[in-house]
Amino acid sequence: MDTEMQPIRIGVMGCAEIARKVSRAIQLAPNAVIAAVASRSLEKAKLFASSNGYPESAKIYGSYESILEDSEVDALYIPLPTSLHVEWAIRAAEKGKHILLEKPVAMNVAEFDKIVLACETNGVQIMDGTMWAHHPRTAKLKEFLFDSERFGQLKNVHSCFTLAGDEDFLENNIRVKPDLDGLGALGDLGWYAIRATLFANNFELPKTATAIPGSTILNEPGVILTCGASLSWEEGRTATIHCSFLENLTMEITAIGTKGMLRVHDFVIPFQETEASFTTCTKGWFNKAVTAWVNPPSEHIIKTGLPQEECMVREFARLVGEIKNNGAKPDGFWPSIIRKTQMVVDAVKESVDKNCQQISLLGL
Amino acid sequence: MDTEMQPIRIGVMGCAEIARKVSRAIQLAPNAVIAAVASRSLEKAKLFASSNGYPESAKIYGSYESILEDSEVDALYIPLPTSLHVEWAIRAAEKGKHILLEKPVAMNVAEFDKIVLACETNGVQIMDGTMWAHHPRTAKLKEFLFDSERFGQLKNVHSCFTLAGDEDFLENNIRVKPDLDGLGALGDLGWYAIRATLFANNFELPKTATAIPGSTILNEPGVILTCGASLSWEEGRTATIHCSFLENLTMEITAIGTKGMLRVHDFVIPFQETEASFTTCTKGWFNKAVTAWVNPPSEHIIKTGLPQEECMVREFARLVGEIKNNGAKPDGFWPSIIRKTQMVVDAVKESVDKNCQQISLLGL
Repeated sequence: MDTEMQPIRIGVMGCAEIARKVSRAIQLAPNAVIAAVASRSLEKAKLFASSNGYPESAKIYGSYESILEDSEVDALYIPLPTSLHVEWAIRAAEKGKHILLEKPVAMNVAEFDKIVLACETNGVQIMDGTMWAHHPRTAKLKEFLFDSERFGQLKNVHSCFTLAGDEDFLENNIRVKPDLDGLGALGDLGWYAIRATLFANNFELPKTATAIPGSTILNEPGVILTCGASLSWEEGRTATIHCSFLENLTMEITAIGTKGMLRVHDFVIPFQETEASFTTCTKGWFNKAVTAWVNPPSEHIIKTGLPQEECMVREFARLVGEIKNNGAKPDGFWPSIIRKTQMVVDAVKESVDKNCQQISLLGL
Repeated sequence: MDTEMQPIRIGVMGCAEIARKVSRAIQLAPNAVIAAVASRSLEKAKLFASSNGYPESAKIYGSYESILEDSEVDALYIPLPTSLHVEWAIRAAEKGKHILLEKPVAMNVAEFDKIVLACETNGVQIMDGTMWAHHPRTAKLKEFLFDSERFGQLKNVHSCFTLAGDEDFLENNIRVKPDLDGLGALGDLGWYAIRATLFANNFELPKTATAIPGSTILNEPGVILTCGASLSWEEGRTATIHCSFLENLTMEITAIGTKGMLRVHDFVIPFQETEASFTTCTKGWFNKAVTAWVNPPSEHIIKTGLPQEECMVREFARLVGEIKNNGAKPDGFWPSIIRKTQMVVDAVKESVDKNCQQISLLGL
């Protein structure tokens, strides 16, 4: 049976701001359909559905429990605050719902392992909301990074993601609340920077993680507003990451290899919806007078008709369709790289908490 | 008396590769003239003079001592290996020669202080060969970095400078020899990255310097081929630097402030001789759907008719002219920022040597 004939019916659990663009993406994806939305308040769920152009067929629920009981929902998109993930993701898995879970996926890897166990036990797919992984540009980045002629061996990556939250954000946003998104900027922004360094390292886990001395800024309740860290692999291969809610919007990957260099300046959210670029350099050197470059960096532009979140939903629905319609097993790649991302987040958090002590990830 | 009527007579002490472009710059600068060149071998000095288009009036010396004795030489450009700086810079100062000294200026700040003392005692100007400081772009970078509306307060800087030395370089170049340029990649490339972080911090010395765990690569005799470090100031303001002889040519400054961001991708040697660019962003944010940016970064291009090393020579000759012709005192800015750069180089070296121990620069 053609999976495209039966679009995957996705329910949205929680009406967070980010659920707006994912709702739009579900509607755009040819192999998915919005089946339902749930909030703790029926009123709020109704308003969310109407203001986001939900189809009339979409069911509106005034509690998270009720959407779990709907047998016409195949999968759930869960943008709840991080502290609620472990409960609701496990309950969703136990009801056989496939899960698209916002990042950070959990408060720590122990929580995430419980979620994964529930997913495995119930044969459901899990994927995280790291949208840039699905942008067509990302496949091109990968091609370059693993090209032994154009890039060589990776030696160093720097990745940062900062944004300047306004007064209201810094007072009231769930991402600065210890009981909601208690990992703060590290969980929200550092997640992406860490994922970028893992991506460039072909998802090899670093040996160590160490917070940058003097970089941590906490708010009064102790949530990270700014932090930086370094990661190390074998043979001098290192990465630095930096994340902050207190600095102008900046996001970048600079990856340096033995023969080449790669730069992306908008890796999490592209400057434009319809195209995205990256810069590469191979065998850069100086002219004879050492007053200019030969082989300077060049820019590559990727046109895309579809926003990256639509690509994410389409891939998620494809995997769910394989399971539902073709008896496939859940794809192991996503939980594996999500777990590694969370492990590094945890190690950086531990180093932050322990005054920049070097944390080993060996044998974990 | 118009100082332009009496060009400053500069001697070149040593025929290093980099002396070629500085020789050209001295010839281009309207207020300077090449007066002499010295090498340990008369043959080598002759060949260097003829192959670099030296004027017939330029005197050729077969020893460093003899150029010091030439009363028609006002100033010396010294591109000797770092280990020889302390001896020859002091001897030059004692002979009343103003000094344009290649970086790293010394093996450590104690050596540099001896050089500065000799310069002060003898009333001579010292400047280092950090050419990018004199590029007209750099003034524009400064304007932006210290604009409280467009950039706000600096929070984080990342700067790197890497190049991929070939087999011959890694075997034979003076920059990998412990007895010549014993600071290796840190002294040669890290110097610039450290200067960039100080520049962005308005030359405020950091409180601490810490090598990045796992980042150091030494060659067999123990010279740094790769290293990274973090620096910290007050209130979570930090910088990371990275330098290497083993990675594709990459040089960058990314400075993030509360309201803006600045990026330069060719800060040491511009991609082109005749123009250079930099990128700024102010109040970057997302569109309503959070699928693209508002106020994305924009590029600024600076056209320049003159290579940056010519700007450096011109400024050096101007300062020397002020002293020689107008009785001015030597300018204190250059020795002050050179010293700070060397202090941070020393602190990073100490941290590298002490297995990434955090080194305090307070009270130094």
